[in-house]
Amino acid sequence: MGGDESPHTFVDAAVIFLQHHPFVHIILFGDQAVIQAALHHLDSQSVSTRLTIRHAEQFVAPEDKPSLALRHKQKSSMWMALTAVAEGSAQAILSPGNTGALMAMARHVLGSLEGIDRPAICKRMPISRSVCYVLDLGANLIADVKQLQDFALLGAALVEAEGLSPARVGLLNVGQELQKGTDLLQDANESLKAATRFQYLGFVEGNAIFDGSVNVVVCDGFSGNVALKACEGLARYLAADLHSYFAASWTKRLLGTLIKILANGWFKRLNPDAYNGALLIGLNGIVVKSHGGANRAGFIAALNVAADLAQRRPDQLLTRWLSENR
Amino acid sequence: MGGDESPHTFVDAAVIFLQHHPFVHIILFGDQAVIQAALHHLDSQSVSTRLTIRHAEQFVAPEDKPSLALRHKQKSSMWMALTAVAEGSAQAILSPGNTGALMAMARHVLGSLEGIDRPAICKRMPISRSVCYVLDLGANLIADVKQLQDFALLGAALVEAEGLSPARVGLLNVGQELQKGTDLLQDANESLKAATRFQYLGFVEGNAIFDGSVNVVVCDGFSGNVALKACEGLARYLAADLHSYFAASWTKRLLGTLIKILANGWFKRLNPDAYNGALLIGLNGIVVKSHGGANRAGFIAALNVAADLAQRRPDQLLTRWLSENR
Repeated sequence: MGGDESPHTFVDAAVIFLQHHPFVHIILFGDQAVIQAALHHLDSQSVSTRLTIRHAEQFVAPEDKPSLALRHKQKSSMWMALTAVAEGSAQAILSPGNTGALMAMARHVLGSLEGIDRPAICKRMPISRSVCYVLDLGANLIADVKQLQDFALLGAALVEAEGLSPARVGLLNVGQELQKGTDLLQDANESLKAATRFQYLGFVEGNAIFDGSVNVVVCDGFSGNVALKACEGLARYLAADLHSYFAASWTKRLLGTLIKILANGWFKRLNPDAYNGALLIGLNGIVVKSHGGANRAGFIAALNVAADLAQRRPDQLLTRWLSENR
Repeated sequence: MGGDESPHTFVDAAVIFLQHHPFVHIILFGDQAVIQAALHHLDSQSVSTRLTIRHAEQFVAPEDKPSLALRHKQKSSMWMALTAVAEGSAQAILSPGNTGALMAMARHVLGSLEGIDRPAICKRMPISRSVCYVLDLGANLIADVKQLQDFALLGAALVEAEGLSPARVGLLNVGQELQKGTDLLQDANESLKAATRFQYLGFVEGNAIFDGSVNVVVCDGFSGNVALKACEGLARYLAADLHSYFAASWTKRLLGTLIKILANGWFKRLNPDAYNGALLIGLNGIVVKSHGGANRAGFIAALNVAADLAQRRPDQLLTRWLSENR
């Protein structure tokens, strides 16, 4: 309920997702009347047995303060959906709502993994032929050495849950040379060298997010957020700029259409919506956050992330790792 | 002398640049024998009257510590070139060498502008139909409120020196909402509201670097460096990925060639080398830094930046602004 748009797009995406994934069941938490009105316009008959509506009296608004939402919105769709995950009646939650409130409620309802003080926001980057997770993306604007170590472990579990082992992990810095960066990064670098669950490769620069050299880029939430949004901005800019190139004449328009057909997979990379769906990692359960203003394709992409993680369960792998380390 | 490659590429770029810019004179500082050997292979006859060689006994190595270079490398090509700028026999310096040493020597030889404690590294972003400078890009990994204010002023002068006035300035944060970000950013935001030399637009996110909403993105050197390198990484990744798409079959190769001809200006954007040349701003003089490992086109791009700034002289505008404010 708490996205930027009306829930129609979200409901639409859920129906289409179910049509393509016969073994998935979706529970929609929110205003029953609104959801039913949205379903009324859709061809949802074929999936109706795998689509449940649970009415919520409240919803968390985008502008709600997390601390207040936590106290006063315990009948909200967000709280109810998290409770379903905590009780085991759902295996993952996808929310397009207020990120701060989602993190606060998830920590309260699901709890953090034992040994992880602060969960992180993480995204799998859209690179082919390789896997790269970047974290934190904004849950912790400043991160100390322990947190950076935690992020490395959380990222490594995500990689290992995809069947890649050991994960190659890098620490984001302004240069690869040993003397680069702040004292904090120097200390974190030393601590990470002792890691046993993954292969620590030392400092990496921003380009490592895309060059395939590492599977996990560890950073504080401020740098991660800035890097991700700068890249999204560049991709959108390139797409718009290319569009105007190919709109200049009919021969160029024809050529543009041809390329879009032939290199469709490539063009998709210029559309950050296609890579919607960030993971809140470090919690007892799978929590996925969608952009509030995503379009249908964006919500479907985020549903894919949630369904995929519900099967891989990096949180359970982490629980095992953390208990073995104690 | 201090780039990653032999100086041949640099000398080659200088000759070609002179051939295309009849009113420019270049002084090459370095090992005379090496430079002459490089020139020997080039068709430099036509520009020889505008190309001077000044022999330097020393050069700053990429691994030299800035503090030691400052003390022991006062006969280096870098020091000599900066001295030429200080004495007025050159209007700008372009160096492919050690960035830290260049900053330290520039502060010593040229001096910082009065009122600017710490110069910044700045780059003009490759967007069409708009101008956007991002700073700091790594000279100051942590920046306090005064420094962020300085960066805003330095960036605004660069924009105004291009004939755009007033500059629109944004402060990089993880969200545009007022309550977002660290206490430091909150304080900087309040201080910047009092600015009179430019239009301060408040917090911006990473995508603002490319969306044309602001002319200056102000940030600490760590975030700026990370954002820039992440974007360079994305551009290189997209270029390589597109290349492999179009290499798949001969029809695709043909199409790929056609597009590269028709949308050449667009493809150039995927090549960060074409945007080589960062400015060290806040100094009494124009100091431009090239990537050490740039190719010929990259060095030519950086020479363009230096020649352009030598005409616009944002440092002189800044001197006037700063003296008027005292």
